[in-house]
Amino acid sequence: MLNITSSSNPTIKMIKSLYKRKERWNKKLFIVEGIKIVEECIDYDYPIEYIVYSDQLLKVIGGKELLDKVNSLSNLIKVPDRLFNEISDVETPQGILAVVPFRTSKIEDIDVDNKPFLLLLDRVQDPGNLGSIIRTADAFGIDGIIVTEGCVDVYNPKVVRATMGSILRVPIYHHKSSQDIIMQLKKKGATVYSTSLEGKEFIQNVDFKQFSLLIIGNESKGVSISLEGLADNLIKIPMVGKAESLNAAVASSIIMYECLRQRLNKFL
Amino acid sequence: MLNITSSSNPTIKMIKSLYKRKERWNKKLFIVEGIKIVEECIDYDYPIEYIVYSDQLLKVIGGKELLDKVNSLSNLIKVPDRLFNEISDVETPQGILAVVPFRTSKIEDIDVDNKPFLLLLDRVQDPGNLGSIIRTADAFGIDGIIVTEGCVDVYNPKVVRATMGSILRVPIYHHKSSQDIIMQLKKKGATVYSTSLEGKEFIQNVDFKQFSLLIIGNESKGVSISLEGLADNLIKIPMVGKAESLNAAVASSIIMYECLRQRLNKFL
Repeated sequence: MLNITSSSNPTIKMIKSLYKRKERWNKKLFIVEGIKIVEECIDYDYPIEYIVYSDQLLKVIGGKELLDKVNSLSNLIKVPDRLFNEISDVETPQGILAVVPFRTSKIEDIDVDNKPFLLLLDRVQDPGNLGSIIRTADAFGIDGIIVTEGCVDVYNPKVVRATMGSILRVPIYHHKSSQDIIMQLKKKGATVYSTSLEGKEFIQNVDFKQFSLLIIGNESKGVSISLEGLADNLIKIPMVGKAESLNAAVASSIIMYECLRQRLNKFL
Repeated sequence: MLNITSSSNPTIKMIKSLYKRKERWNKKLFIVEGIKIVEECIDYDYPIEYIVYSDQLLKVIGGKELLDKVNSLSNLIKVPDRLFNEISDVETPQGILAVVPFRTSKIEDIDVDNKPFLLLLDRVQDPGNLGSIIRTADAFGIDGIIVTEGCVDVYNPKVVRATMGSILRVPIYHHKSSQDIIMQLKKKGATVYSTSLEGKEFIQNVDFKQFSLLIIGNESKGVSISLEGLADNLIKIPMVGKAESLNAAVASSIIMYECLRQRLNKFL
């Protein structure tokens, strides 16, 4: 264990720099904060670069037990409460955070024979929405999320928080060009779906048991026209009331549920 | 039209006071802000106490057209941009807001013969979640939302914004005691459902075509034990991944979708 008390310590400075997207991507590291998610890192053997804690941790339920678990780790850093608060991104810090590496999944590793269901996110901007989509994808056994240029960073602390730990589990694929990756997956046999207010088929009538790629669009602008053009099927959620649209996280979650409902025999 | 330039004008002061829950409930008035929702008030003939605008409105797409629509109203107030910004609750004001009355729906008016589907919210705390639930309820033709003590105020500006106008359309019932209202609706023939991690029946196997009341619980604590005890059926959303739970708005939206899917023959 290392004791650090100064905010000008290079490691502390490096950790604080991870609140900037550019620095996260330079170092391929991000921060997970709070008892629950740090515990999940340990339980899932997620690689850990550093764990930082302060005495505040001992005042939180479960804090002592977690400290016992990590106490023998060589990359454990103890800091005073005031320094922890300086590094922390939350209003009421629990006194523990971990610095962990990106886990990069490769499109080539997707087992297409297993008829995966994948999401492709097109310019999803709201951190809460993105986090919530990742959380639902984890709950419903979605096989992976492809994040393309123009989306909010999945390693943004607000996104990470909203995933409630699911960021550690759901395979995330980063790809610059949405068009490239859609074409690549079509060649491998994916049927590409895009939600659209002009969609013809209601989701409950779509066959999601095949290898499927669902494009989720921007909160206010929807799916880019150029990507919509690549879709095999424009689909829509049945709506009988007067609201014109749903929240982006809600809409994607409903389609993920419909997919799972159809596929349940595979799992249960 | 009235011209007001001073922030100490009594009407302006009254409008600003509506950012406080207590004042909203004293006056039974709330604020809706932005071109789209003010336009919806006009289009749906929602009663309007005041419309406040500034020249800023003319710089926004659709602003001139909206001003033409409301120009003849006697309860229109024009203020300078700086005063509008003072009243406004958003970062980039569009220069128009309306003060509108609560629309109180009464439980007695619910047509139980029509087998309604109702939600009861138990201590839902997050404004974004509550707004999103109201928006989805509108999209899926839910018959009403019962809001009980301990929930965030539905007329909170953040909630109103997240409903994207649906606050004007979905019947909202306020009731102090959840237990009272549940017992009352049970007597009228409602089957009461509560989501629970210990739920026995998966939602896709539940018959939502009957007169149904679904209890939605608090974001982190779930449904109160005392209310769970009043439920006829503890239900759960199928999850095959490792996430333990879903975001509250996502979970309720998925159940509303499942309900609509089952009832679609009634509508389409």
